[in-house]
This record gives sequence, C-alpha cells and structure tokens, in this order.
Amino acid sequence: MPKIPRSSTQDYSAAMSEQRRDFIETQTKASLSNVGHFSISPESLAGNIENFTGVAQVPIGFAGPMLVNGETAEGEFYVPMATTEGTLVASYSRGMRLTREAGGITTTVIDDAMQRAPMFAFADAREALAFGKWVIQHFDTIKQASEETTKVGQLRDIEQHAVSKLRWLRFNFTCGDAAGQNMVSRATKAGCDWILENYPGKVEHFVLAANMDTDKKHSHLNSLHTRGKRVVAEITLPKQLMTDIMHCPPEALFKQRQYSNMGAFMAGSVNNGAHFANGITAMFIACGQDVANVAESSAGFTYAEILPNGDYYFSVTIPSLIVATYGGGTGLATQHECLEVLGCTGKGKVNKFAEIVAATVLCGELSLGSAVVADEWVSSHEKLGRNR
Amino acid sequence: MPKIPRSSTQDYSAAMSEQRRDFIETQTKASLSNVGHFSISPESLAGNIENFTGVAQVPIGFAGPMLVNGETAEGEFYVPMATTEGTLVASYSRGMRLTREAGGITTTVIDDAMQRAPMFAFADAREALAFGKWVIQHFDTIKQASEETTKVGQLRDIEQHAVSKLRWLRFNFTCGDAAGQNMVSRATKAGCDWILENYPGKVEHFVLAANMDTDKKHSHLNSLHTRGKRVVAEITLPKQLMTDIMHCPPEALFKQRQYSNMGAFMAGSVNNGAHFANGITAMFIACGQDVANVAESSAGFTYAEILPNGDYYFSVTIPSLIVATYGGGTGLATQHECLEVLGCTGKGKVNKFAEIVAATVLCGELSLGSAVVADEWVSSHEKLGRNR
Amino acid sequence: MPKIPRSSTQDYSAAMSEQRRDFIETQTKASLSNVGHFSISPESLAGNIENFTGVAQVPIGFAGPMLVNGETAEGEFYVPMATTEGTLVASYSRGMRLTREAGGITTTVIDDAMQRAPMFAFADAREALAFGKWVIQHFDTIKQASEETTKVGQLRDIEQHAVSKLRWLRFNFTCGDAAGQNMVSRATKAGCDWILENYPGKVEHFVLAANMDTDKKHSHLNSLHTRGKRVVAEITLPKQLMTDIMHCPPEALFKQRQYSNMGAFMAGSVNNGAHFANGITAMFIACGQDVANVAESSAGFTYAEILPNGDYYFSVTIPSLIVATYGGGTGLATQHECLEVLGCTGKGKVNKFAEIVAATVLCGELSLGSAVVADEWVSSHEKLGRNR
Amino acid sequence: MPKIPRSSTQDYSAAMSEQRRDFIETQTKASLSNVGHFSISPESLAGNIENFTGVAQVPIGFAGPMLVNGETAEGEFYVPMATTEGTLVASYSRGMRLTREAGGITTTVIDDAMQRAPMFAFADAREALAFGKWVIQHFDTIKQASEETTKVGQLRDIEQHAVSKLRWLRFNFTCGDAAGQNMVSRATKAGCDWILENYPGKVEHFVLAANMDTDKKHSHLNSLHTRGKRVVAEITLPKQLMTDIMHCPPEALFKQRQYSNMGAFMAGSVNNGAHFANGITAMFIACGQDVANVAESSAGFTYAEILPNGDYYFSVTIPSLIVATYGGGTGLATQHECLEVLGCTGKGKVNKFAEIVAATVLCGELSLGSAVVADEWVSSHEKLGRNR
Repeated sequence: MPKIPRSSTQDYSAAMSEQRRDFIETQTKASLSNVGHFSISPESLAGNIENFTGVAQVPIGFAGPMLVNGETAEGEFYVPMATTEGTLVASYSRGMRLTREAGGITTTVIDDAMQRAPMFAFADAREALAFGKWVIQHFDTIKQASEETTKVGQLRDIEQHAVSKLRWLRFNFTCGDAAGQNMVSRATKAGCDWILENYPGKVEHFVLAANMDTDKKHSHLNSLHTRGKRVVAEITLPKQLMTDIMHCPPEALFKQRQYSNMGAFMAGSVNNGAHFANGITAMFIACGQDVANVAESSAGFTYAEILPNGDYYFSVTIPSLIVATYGGGTGLATQHECLEVLGCTGKGKVNKFAEIVAATVLCGELSLGSAVVADEWVSSHEKLGRNR
Repeated sequence: MPKIPRSSTQDYSAAMSEQRRDFIETQTKASLSNVGHFSISPESLAGNIENFTGVAQVPIGFAGPMLVNGETAEGEFYVPMATTEGTLVASYSRGMRLTREAGGITTTVIDDAMQRAPMFAFADAREALAFGKWVIQHFDTIKQASEETTKVGQLRDIEQHAVSKLRWLRFNFTCGDAAGQNMVSRATKAGCDWILENYPGKVEHFVLAANMDTDKKHSHLNSLHTRGKRVVAEITLPKQLMTDIMHCPPEALFKQRQYSNMGAFMAGSVNNGAHFANGITAMFIACGQDVANVAESSAGFTYAEILPNGDYYFSVTIPSLIVATYGGGTGLATQHECLEVLGCTGKGKVNKFAEIVAATVLCGELSLGSAVVADEWVSSHEKLGRNR
Repeated sequence: MPKIPRSSTQDYSAAMSEQRRDFIETQTKASLSNVGHFSISPESLAGNIENFTGVAQVPIGFAGPMLVNGETAEGEFYVPMATTEGTLVASYSRGMRLTREAGGITTTVIDDAMQRAPMFAFADAREALAFGKWVIQHFDTIKQASEETTKVGQLRDIEQHAVSKLRWLRFNFTCGDAAGQNMVSRATKAGCDWILENYPGKVEHFVLAANMDTDKKHSHLNSLHTRGKRVVAEITLPKQLMTDIMHCPPEALFKQRQYSNMGAFMAGSVNNGAHFANGITAMFIACGQDVANVAESSAGFTYAEILPNGDYYFSVTIPSLIVATYGGGTGLATQHECLEVLGCTGKGKVNKFAEIVAATVLCGELSLGSAVVADEWVSSHEKLGRNR
Repeated sequence: MPKIPRSSTQDYSAAMSEQRRDFIETQTKASLSNVGHFSISPESLAGNIENFTGVAQVPIGFAGPMLVNGETAEGEFYVPMATTEGTLVASYSRGMRLTREAGGITTTVIDDAMQRAPMFAFADAREALAFGKWVIQHFDTIKQASEETTKVGQLRDIEQHAVSKLRWLRFNFTCGDAAGQNMVSRATKAGCDWILENYPGKVEHFVLAANMDTDKKHSHLNSLHTRGKRVVAEITLPKQLMTDIMHCPPEALFKQRQYSNMGAFMAGSVNNGAHFANGITAMFIACGQDVANVAESSAGFTYAEILPNGDYYFSVTIPSLIVATYGGGTGLATQHECLEVLGCTGKGKVNKFAEIVAATVLCGELSLGSAVVADEWVSSHEKLGRNR
C-alpha cells in the first residue's frame, strides 16, 4: 500500500487534511465524512499531531453542579465529561448532588513533581556510590544547568536509586501550568550534559530514561513519590443524607470498603477504589489532557471512616494525577472551551483543575459504591447503558 | 448554581443539546461554539451518554501503512490515532516503516476473558471452603443460569480466591465482539442469583464486586489471568535494517532493554516497556473504545533477544487489552468510520482489532526505544512537539 | 587459605566433624567449643548438610497453652519457639491466653499446592499457544509420567502463564507430609521429559525453572495461587475480654487495622498484618522446617470485623505456608522432639502442624497489635528485650 | 492444660529450665532430652527469650574459603551455614570455588537505614500537609529528641508519606553495629513525644507504627528505600572458568537470566534471583541474627551482563539486609563463635558481616543458576539431599 501523502507530516493546511482523507477513503473504501467534519483550524494543530486528517467526535455531557471547597477550586462547577459509556455522567451527577447537599468537597494538592530519571552505569557499585555522593554535592550547579532550559520548571530534588553498578537519578521538577514531560526531559538532559562534562570519574554508560520515571505506565514508585499532582478530595457525609439520596447507610458502604480493600490488596491492584479512571478519562478527553496518562493517573487510594456520630468520612487520594492547563491539547478549540467552563484558563490554574478532577473522582466513587451496595448497579446500566 | 436543564438526562434531541449549551454558556460565560459543532446525530447517543451537550474534537492522524501477519489481521493498515501529543503519529509511523520493511508483524491473541468477581462472606473459613467446593460441583448449572442473560457471552470458568471467611468467584466469560463489562455483570448476577437461591448453606453477605475483577484499574491479577484479550505482537528485525532506519544496532537496543527491565522491576512498574499507553489510547479514542480501560490495557510485557545471527527478536505482550468492535462507542459516527478504515466493522472482528492495536504498540516501542538510544528523543520533541 | 578438610563433604563421622572444627579453629583462631557441643548423631545428618562441623544452639521457649479448634489440630498445645528476640515468647503467650479464654482458635487448611514451573520457548507466540493446548489435552499422561517418580506426590493441575513466545507450566502437586520441593522438581522433570519426547512441535528451549514457581522468595503469584498450605486462623473475641486482658477495646484495634491496611497497601507490602514472620520463624527453627521458606511463608492477609454485638472477629490467612512433618530437618533430634510435643510426628500430620502455626501467628498478631494500640510496645521491649 | 511453670518467664536458672522440660514432658509425653542438651548458660539468655527450656540444635557446615574484596571484608572466609537442606553447603561451596578462582567478589554497602514509621491523623488533608511542613522545619529538634535515647543511633532523615488525612513519618536511623529495631522504636517514640508536645496544631490520632516501616515482612518501599543495609556483591567471571567449573558458558547463564527476569516480573516476585534466602537464612541462624528478618532480607535484585570480551559480569543487590554484630542473638555462645570465625566480633564490624553475607548470596546464585542451566540440579539433590 502506498504511503500517506504529505508534503510533510507537518503540513497543517485544510487542503492537505482533505487530501489525506481522500487518500484513506480511496485506499480503504471507508468514508471519513464525519471525521472530516470539524470546526477546529488545522493550522492550530502544529505541535499536536502529524498527518492531521480529521477529528474524533467524542460526546460530551456535563455533570453537576459540583460544590468544591478547594484551596484553589472554590465554588460550583459544571464538569465536562467526554465519554461513550452510558450511565457515567448520570452516576457522577448523582454523587455531585449528594456531596453538594453535604456541603461540598474539600480538596488539597499535597505534592507536585514531574520527573525524568536518567541512568548512569559504572565499572562497579563503588564507583556508582561515589558518583551518587558527587551528585549530592553538586546539586546546586546541576539545578542551574537544568533550569537554564526552562522559564517555569524548577528542579526540586534528585532522588537516587541504585542497584548493582547502575544508578538512576530521578530529577523531580515543578512545572507551572504544564504537565511538563517534555520540559523535564529537556531540563534533565541539560543537567546530565553538565554532569557528563564535569564528573571527574568515568561514566561507562548514560541513558536519559530507563523506566524509573515512570512514564505512561503505572509504577509503585509513582504512587509513593508522586508524578504530577498528589491530590486529596474528602468529605464528611451526614448519615441521613446517604440513606436518603444513595439508599445506602454509612455502615453498608463501609462494610463494602472493607471487602474492596481486601480484594484490591489480594489482587495486587494499584487502586483500592472503584473506578477513578472513568471520571479522570472523561475529563482528560474533554479538557485536552494527555489521555495516555490515564495509565498513571488511574492509581489511587480510598480511605473511609465512620465517625463517632455515625457520619461517613470519605476520601480519595490520587498520587499521580498528570494535568495541565497550558500546553499539550489544552489550547485546542473544544478542549479550551471546556477548560473555560471550569474557569481553568489563564495563568496559575493547574492546581484548580487538579482539585476539580479529584472532587469529580470522589463523586464517582460514592455513586458507584452506593449503587453496588444498594444493588442498583446492574439495573441502572440496564436502564441507561448499551447492552454491550 | 442551578441544575442542568433537562426533561431528562436521557433527552437526546438536538434542541435539548443546544439548550444545555446555552445554559452552560449563560452560567459560566464560556463559549461552547466548537463543542456545539458536530456531525453526529444526538439521537444516536442514547445509551452512550447522559446530558449530551456537544463533542470534544480530538485530532486524528493516520500512521502507516503497517504490515501485519496476524491470525485475523492480515495485510496493511492505516492506523487512526486520536491524540494531541506532538511526535506521536510520526514516531509510530517510523516504527511501522521499519517493521514493514522487515516483513511485517506477527500477532496472536493467546487468551480471552472478561470477568466480574462477586464476593461471598460466611460464618467462617470452613464454610467458605465448603461453598467453594459446592460451586465447583454446580458449575454447569451456574453457567446455564449466567448464559441465559446473553446471546454471545459464554462462561469459561470460575476462579476462586479465598481469604479469611470471604470467597471471591471470578467469573470469566468470552463476550464475542463486545468488550463485555456490562454483559458479564448481568450474567454474573444471574449466576449468583441462582447460587443464592440454591446454595443450602448460609451466605452471610453477598456483593457483586469487590475489587477482584479488577475493573478500571490495573491489578497484577489481571496481568496474570488476562482481562479482555491477551495479545502478542512480535517481529524479527534484520540487524542492518535497524541500523539503517533507526540508527541503532540490536546490541544497543538490547542493552537499553536490560536497563529498562531492571528499572521497571525496581520501580514496581506494571509494564517493562516504554509507552504502550500512547498507541493504545490514541486508537481507543479514534475507534470508540472505552478509553478509561487504558488503566488496565496499559500494562504489559516486553521481551527481546539477540538471535545467533545478530538479528533482533522483539515482542510486546498486552495481557489486559480491553477492546470491542460492537457496542459501547464503536457505533458512533467518527469512531465507526475509523473502525471501517481498519476493516473492523461487522461481525467477528474483535480479535482483528486487538491484533492491530498490539502491532501498533510494538511499532511505538521500537521507535521510542531507538530514539532514546540514538539520543534523538529530546530533539524530535523539540522539532515536532509543543514546548510544554 | 586451604580447603576445608574432608574425605568428602559427605563424611558424617564424629571424628570428621571434630577434624573440621580443629581446622576452622586453627585457620581462624576462633573457638568452636560450643558449636562442637551437641547431642545429635553426626551420622544422622546425611542428606541434611555437607561439611558437618557442629551446631547452632538456638534457645527454645514454650508459649501456651494455646487452644485450637482445627480440622486436624484439636485441643491445647505448648508451642516451641526458637528465637533470640526478647519479648517474643511472652508476647505470643499473652495472645494465647486471650484466645484460650475466648474459646480457642478455629483453623482451616483451605488450599494445598507445591509447584515447579518449567519454561518452554518456541519460535513464536502462536507455537507457544499450540503447545499450551496440547498440554491440556495430554494432561493425564503428563500426570502419570510425573507421578511415577513419587509415592505420595499427586499432580493436581498445570497452570499456564504465557508471554511473548515463552510459556511457563506451573505444575501444582500435593505432597503428603513433605514440603515437597525436591519431590516436585523430580516429578516435574519426569513430566517434562515425557513432554519433550512426545510433543510433535518444536521446543526451542526448555528449562526446569525460571521464577514462576516461585521458590525461596515471595511472589504475588504465590499469594494468589498458594504455595504450600493456605491456612486460615480465626476467632471471635468478646469485647470485655479484650479490654480486660489486652487493655484495648475492639474499636481501637479495628481503627489501627484501618491504618495498617492503608499503610501496607501504600508500602506495597506483602502482608497487611504485623509480624507473621516472628512466630513462623521461631516454630520453623524449633521444628526442623526449611527456615529459608520464611521468605514465602511470611506473606499474609489479616482481616477483621467488629460484629453487631461489639465483639471482634479477627483472622489471619497465610497463603504460602511451607511446612513438613516428614523429610528435611523434621527427623533431627531436637526438631523431632519439638514436633512430638505438638503431636505432629507420624503419618498425616502436616495439616495439623500448619494449623498450629497459623493459630500461633494469630496470637502474635493480637498481642503485638494490642501492645501498639495500648502503647505498651516500647515499654515491654524495654523490660524484656536487649537494648539493641 | 496447666500453665507453664515459672516463678517468672524471666527466671533463667538452669533449674528452672529443667523444671520446664519436666513439665512439658509430663504434659505431652514427649522427650526433651536433646532439647535439654546444651552448653550455653541459661543465665546468659536474659533479654533473648522467655520461658527458656532448651535449644534447637541446628547443624552447621562451613563453606569456603570464599575470597572477598570488600570495603570492610577483605580476604578469605570460611562461612558458617546452619541448615537442614542437603546440597546447600556443597552448592555454595562450589560458587565460592568459582569466584575465588576468578579473583574474588567485590562487595559494597551502598546504603544504611533502619526505620520506624509513626502515623499521625488529622481533621483533613490540609492539616496533615501543614503538619508535614512543620516537621521539616523542626527536623533538628526532633532529631535531638530522638537521639537522646541512644548512644549510637543517628536520625538520618524523615521521609513523609501521605494519603487522605493521614501522614506517616518514616524515621530513618543509622544504628552502629546493632540491627536497631528496638533502638529506633525507642528513639522514634521520643521524637514523636516531642512532636506531640510541641506541635501547635491538633493531632487527632497518633500511633507509633502502621505498616510503613515495614517490619518483619517484605514491602516494595523497603526495596526502594533500604531497610538495614543495601549491599552489592559483584564479580567478573572469565568465560573459560565458567565452562570449566560450572559446565555452563556465560551465554547460557545469561539466557536463563532473561527468562528468570521475565518470570519474576510476571510473577510479581520480590527478587529476580534464584534463592538469596538460602544463604541468608543459613548465616542468620549460625550467626545470631534475627532470623525472622529473612522476610525482608530475602528480597533482591540480580543484574548480569556479557562483557565485550565474552566474560560474565554478575551481581546481586540486597536492598533490605538486616544484620547486626552487636545485640540480639549475636552474643550467644555458638552464634558468637561463628561471628568470630568471620572476624566479625568487636566494634565496627557490621558492614563487614553484611558484605560477607552478600558475597555468599552471590556464590549461591551462580551455583544454582549454573546447575539449573547445566541440568545438574535435580540430580545433585538426588545425590546429596533427602528425598523430600
């Protein structure tokens, strides 16, 4: 089969996108008439995609209003969710109704780090250890070299992980409103260039990444040490309200939590909650996030207590929530509109967005958890979903 | 803030979607003019979303042609990728060029199972054990009861996992062309209804799910026992070809593999590869998959060898690839077009689609891996990507 | 330095053991007078050790009496514990007192499997898949070939685990009163010999073990699928009794359980309990078990509930408890005496021993858990332990 | 059944130990004549055990000589191994012969930390975060308060791990020649006492430990962050020597390493090596270590390379090796003799001992690995072991 036509993969004219559609249609006999229907300007896509040909139209529904008492996200929000899974928007909305009547969700970003973890190999472990000490001594200079490549990125610290004669340096940066993966790659490379030029010992091998970051996949390390934002959303739910709205008293939900904790622990799951990924993914698609980061962002911790007065304390912690309000897909047409609906455009909004995502996740956990307990889960999918 | 207007969340008229846009725009001062621009018929979305308001336009580029020698996917494919990450389409295309010149990618679906794992609690472990034995004895009847709820779902087996006085039954189904999460929920519930009615002992507590499935999050259990399809893509790359196209001889890529294996093992990563999630996510969005399943689908195994003649054997295994060519979002307008480009519409195409995804993932691994080794990684992001 | 003298490593005469002590003393100037003091007959050690030189004298204390209501372990037991950690025997004894007054501990062996997992490599994944199907079809013959090497070992089933072009067969055996590692190696080898002779396809590489067993180290797979015995010990503790004896009401212990569950999940721990390993190790040394199996046997699950009447349900599950009452060190002099104290000598006693170990572990968990909660932990170590 | 007789559990007279033996013998009809045969003085056991009744006699064989080029362990060693597993001493000896002829094993202690991880609960995550910042600011004073309880313990740093409204502080100490678990419990408690008295905010709940330490069980956290010593042993083996002594060329061993790496990763194993636990356990019993720490110490990493000249680089890394040359059981009669054989008595010897253990582990890995590859594994157990 022939190559996809292009003056270059980087030609973003409308004409070229049409030419590509024609080509694909001719080659495969498939129609791309809907894929070819879009309002975004192809020219705006430079830096976001190559071989631009059209769009996926992913349906958006809004859930809410959701009441958030965040450090940066304060007030009520209508949450855009792009999904094709029936019942999802309805289910999150139900959780938002519950939490709103309970006075809203408290959210806090408790940690923030984006990383690249270059690896250095040496003749033996002793040389690797000596190198590690040298890096600690020269942190300030390495930091300076790294930060010269970026206006907003700041090198927070360098963790070290060692095995055999190998040593990984996990460069942890804060990245402003960007998710920062490219920013930290560049900055880490600059830091390493300085190291390689100045380290008096012999580095036998260097590589910019070797799976201690870890990028585009979950790792326990990420859950322990944070990748992106570490966010907590929490709420105390009056006992009566739970019974009224969710048909599920705190005791029943808490009991289910015990079983789910045990199940998750036995299964070797990366999340003891129910379906963090649903809310995160729907918001990521709607709001121009790098959706592949669902791999990392879907990990999490759920923690609950029945308080002495019988109310239900419930929380979700997302340890690796990778979000941006600048760069990546955040500037694209529909994506930018959705960020605007949330008041998350302009400078300094990334934590606000992170908090809204976490609050949304919490609503989804309460809603699905209650549905499972109240045995309304299958029946609501019967009613709202496709018979997949 | 007021509630989102609706006669019901289920009103799928164009008028209602416009009314919802007006409402959101009024409440938030944001414009939804691009979100409101779509060619799909709102009426077609019943079962896929509630509160339908518009669409996310996610740019699609095609990569390829990619040559696949699958059991069901045979021939060349142009692969639709919906993404906003610059360099991604170009990078996968580079891998497709390499693998095509090497004779194409062999793909095989080696396992298939979708599950729901209800939990039963008893007075003590001994009663739980007796229950487990009874379930084994009555498998045929449970299977019959489960399968009465579905035309295509077939109950393959029931795994048992026990701790304390609790026992999980992991019902493993094959689900035809559907991903099957709802199908198996319904069927498992029917099987459990039969169990609960007929088991002569006392079940103290029953719940349809408690995290041994595991749904919408990675678990080690899923990687061991498969969730969705378990697919392998593999290829043997001539040594010279690698050097010519990737500027990276087998030895260098293999060395990097050693470091990456060690890094992944130390990090507690769920994937020893580089970025399975990128290709999977881009195809999932384009082709109407449940994108939240990137959480499970992003896990995987990479295995490589240098053959006696110096060629490079390389493979990826995706143990929990959750895909569908029927149901969910697969029938939506742009999504269906993309499936059609791949020849994955109509009956009996789900394995073909799974194989194409796995082949795509393999191309992405080879391309990124080589770029990292050849030190072209940061620079290509500089050239093609946004300065995030 | 010279080699250790021997006619052979296998010379088990008292004279040779003395000659070895002389040699070590001469070479190192250390005295071995205590190491040389033992009552066991060197001749009895053939098959247990090479270069026999003397003994480690590990102090034994008895804890108990412990009341067990097991399937096979019924009645009261004085539990021999060989340890050098002060407070350990006292702490377990405290738990035994509590559980005895509560009516005793219920124990059940809920699964039983010892395994060896050979790996077969093929030209590609499709051939590996075909092989897997062939193995299923020929299970009966493979079983027969395996079992010809052993009087007691029985091949229960063969799990299959596949990645790339590789396929592991996990042969699960029951092994009578033996732990069975050598028995299953031999039997699995015989089964594989038959496979290699009779499989019509081409096996490119075969190896008897490649870390899917997994032997002498914890794996999540072992916890899921059992290695050795899977044993549960459980009890319901009256609220008042807990307060009286442990100074710790159920609510306090349950709260601590919540924190410990969360901690274990976050830490990526293989056990959400406190110190299973202490009781297991002390009994393993005293009773002639393969103490290196503490690596696998120390994994576990703790599950607790506050019952409606306020009593405390508490359980421990040990998924990979590797024990024997025959073979290995069980026949040695002191070890055999300790097994005799427990009534675990003679045929058919291995489950009884497993139940006693699990019950002991439960006592230790309750005791340490309460001490931590009641803040008596550091102070009791001050009183009874060495100031390490 | 009656209680075990005692004036107190703490009565360490020979008479009392005899009285206890009589009691057990009377109650159970078992003989304890060998248990009652020992040369250690009962009085010396105060602080090591309660209800002292006798000893387990565990056979010791010496392996070696082993040549080590450590930072602190230099020269040749005869390694005492207390075990009942036949072939073990012979197998380790074989590895020692190989490594000695290759010029010896390089060993390095690359990290050192013993910890206790108290947990603090707050009203919400924001208060927990504020607390975390306060702790950082007051590190020096906390350190001072902690270190007042110990002459040798030094507080290196305090890691923080947060979820929901909970915050764990992982106090990392160095502990001189002691393993230090009790030392750090005491010191951490003192640090926390100071915190609880001086923190101006409200701590809702405090507990000295909740599974983020993690003690007496493996955790991924321990492997990442070290518990006890992190030690590397490494060697380069000439190709010819491997073939001569092990009947196994580097290529074959390296191939097996690839399979074992993949198996361990898939199994969710905590060690990609073969049987670290065997050598560690045998030395722990012989040398008076806390053998229950095999749970943590058995985790590890194996890393190998074929060098350009065809030689084999091989290494083991033990990330959580918990060892002592002071305190615990190190002062007991036979245990002290074994430490003396290694030259590990007296001050400042703990790293030397750690290095010898790691070197021993390396020898065992090479030996078993080669035996598996050369298919000599089952047959050597046939020859030397019991038919378990």
